[in-house]
Amino acid sequence: MSGGFETVSLSADKKELVIIDQTLLPGKRVFLSLKTKEEIFEAIRSLRVRGAPAIGVAAAIGIYVCSLDYYQNARDDFEAEIIAAADYIGSARPTAVNLRWAVERMKHTLTSHSGENAEMVLDALLAAAEGIYREDIECSRRIGEYGLPLLRGCSSVLTHCNAGRLAAVKYGTATAPIYLAHENGIDIRVYCDETRPLMQGARLTSFELSDAGIPVTLLCDNMAGSAMRNGMIDAVIVGCDRVAANGDFANKIGTSMVALCAREYGIPFYVAAPRSTIDMDTENGKQIIIEQRDSDEVTDMWFAQRTAPKGIDVYNPAFDVTDASLVTAFITDAGVVYPPFSENLLVVQEVK
Amino acid sequence: MSGGFETVSLSADKKELVIIDQTLLPGKRVFLSLKTKEEIFEAIRSLRVRGAPAIGVAAAIGIYVCSLDYYQNARDDFEAEIIAAADYIGSARPTAVNLRWAVERMKHTLTSHSGENAEMVLDALLAAAEGIYREDIECSRRIGEYGLPLLRGCSSVLTHCNAGRLAAVKYGTATAPIYLAHENGIDIRVYCDETRPLMQGARLTSFELSDAGIPVTLLCDNMAGSAMRNGMIDAVIVGCDRVAANGDFANKIGTSMVALCAREYGIPFYVAAPRSTIDMDTENGKQIIIEQRDSDEVTDMWFAQRTAPKGIDVYNPAFDVTDASLVTAFITDAGVVYPPFSENLLVVQEVK
Repeated sequence: MSGGFETVSLSADKKELVIIDQTLLPGKRVFLSLKTKEEIFEAIRSLRVRGAPAIGVAAAIGIYVCSLDYYQNARDDFEAEIIAAADYIGSARPTAVNLRWAVERMKHTLTSHSGENAEMVLDALLAAAEGIYREDIECSRRIGEYGLPLLRGCSSVLTHCNAGRLAAVKYGTATAPIYLAHENGIDIRVYCDETRPLMQGARLTSFELSDAGIPVTLLCDNMAGSAMRNGMIDAVIVGCDRVAANGDFANKIGTSMVALCAREYGIPFYVAAPRSTIDMDTENGKQIIIEQRDSDEVTDMWFAQRTAPKGIDVYNPAFDVTDASLVTAFITDAGVVYPPFSENLLVVQEVK
Repeated sequence: MSGGFETVSLSADKKELVIIDQTLLPGKRVFLSLKTKEEIFEAIRSLRVRGAPAIGVAAAIGIYVCSLDYYQNARDDFEAEIIAAADYIGSARPTAVNLRWAVERMKHTLTSHSGENAEMVLDALLAAAEGIYREDIECSRRIGEYGLPLLRGCSSVLTHCNAGRLAAVKYGTATAPIYLAHENGIDIRVYCDETRPLMQGARLTSFELSDAGIPVTLLCDNMAGSAMRNGMIDAVIVGCDRVAANGDFANKIGTSMVALCAREYGIPFYVAAPRSTIDMDTENGKQIIIEQRDSDEVTDMWFAQRTAPKGIDVYNPAFDVTDASLVTAFITDAGVVYPPFSENLLVVQEVK
């Protein structure tokens, strides 16, 4: 893709995990080559690589890279070393579902080839890691392809938070149709909500899009309504953390306010949703538990000085729930899902 | 008022203008005593005192304080000195309507008493300054009294930006019913939107309310919808910069999004509006020109490091327009105004 980096990849010589260090963005564009389990653990732990799919891919490639090292250094207990490295890397962020999933898949590959000669085991691990990596790109690319026709005639899109390539390997989810449009020579201006308190829109989304040569306008979260009212926004695309069976969905805090504005001003509101985020066991949004985070994120983080007096209370939910009724369509990796969502989300789950 | 300071006042010996230095809030609570036109100009210019009503009162008291100094120092051209000081102070913020209005009122007082002996002139200027000061307190207090019954049974209120005592002398506008409830022994928890990009909610509103002993919860602007959806908010009160004849109004950016959420979740939405902000010559919100401000406010101000890559565009409107249809009622200094606003705003203008 023109002008594009990969957030997570295997080095050309297939010996190192390569990531862009997201803690240095947007100020510095630094790629790290990682080899040891300690380096990989630290990179995941300190958010040098973040975003559920990206973490999973980093862990899978990371486990392979460690294994190679154990083999080359002729470690006695080769397989046990790999299991230990996998578990160690898997403990870097205990609640990250994709991380656990990728680690288990790599361990399963190892046990399936247990006792074979080391080169065969390594080949199997490489194939598994490259599979996870390719599947992620493929999933994003399909979302892009299904989403692209929805943007026909749109010259501007608003997004919230970062459901971009920095959360995946390449393309991202909410950004995938925009990157594909760009590949096809169509530039759509992206309005990026800065996304308080963690500023993912300012730091990450506006960085990755402008880095790819896509025109970006940054705005504070409270300006989205004004931009829509003034006719500046043709469509909204956001990502999601979990979609319930009825189409209610959880995403970064503030998403529901964007959705209300989109309805008010007659703007289509799309949700990019890999099928892995659709949870048919969750009936509706009321069943989604929302994580409350530390008050310092609101009052201290990023700021030269604390913004608010000490001793006051702070409300800091990480996510909010948006009603299914506000969603125009979900863009999944198996097609676009329109209402009625209770029926159609079920159908898309069964597509091969 | 218990626990309360005055944002702007004349010192007890009636020789100095006293202000709380808002540039040091919320970290430090420092009161400044100002005497010379240079000190007063600087305080207004560098936003040590800000908020339309507060600036007007500061200028009026400031002009009196300068006059006193010229008299005591037996300046030859006493009246010309006062006019010069008034014009100089009035130039500190060229677009501030209340500042110009207060300066003109003081100059008019001077010319009405021109040629009388200096002590009589000084008495007239003192009376005018104290009048402007008292009228501001009275206006806020009336808004508080009319608003108080609307909050019966409310245990929490959400507000946006700072339409508080720090924008006036005492009580503020949006905060006036809350301060009055507090005086009456009823504590209403106030949810303060932090109000990006200038953080008036975090820095000022949450400071002044907690300083007065009122319970405060700070939240990011994009969290207001979540708080309302979760039943945490009983009413919304915001201030306003201009009300059009049909009830559309301009206020700090983000207000219209709060109003949309309030309607969605069935929460009453009140606008505290001194009658001086009602502009019957503006037919509707479309006629209100919105000031666009510098991009650095979004990407640099307050932050230890720039939040976004260089070279991107930034959308930074200072205000937005909220539709009259989203307003439950305007709380003015002459009573509460319900729809139909086109008729009832006219009526309230005529109340003595």
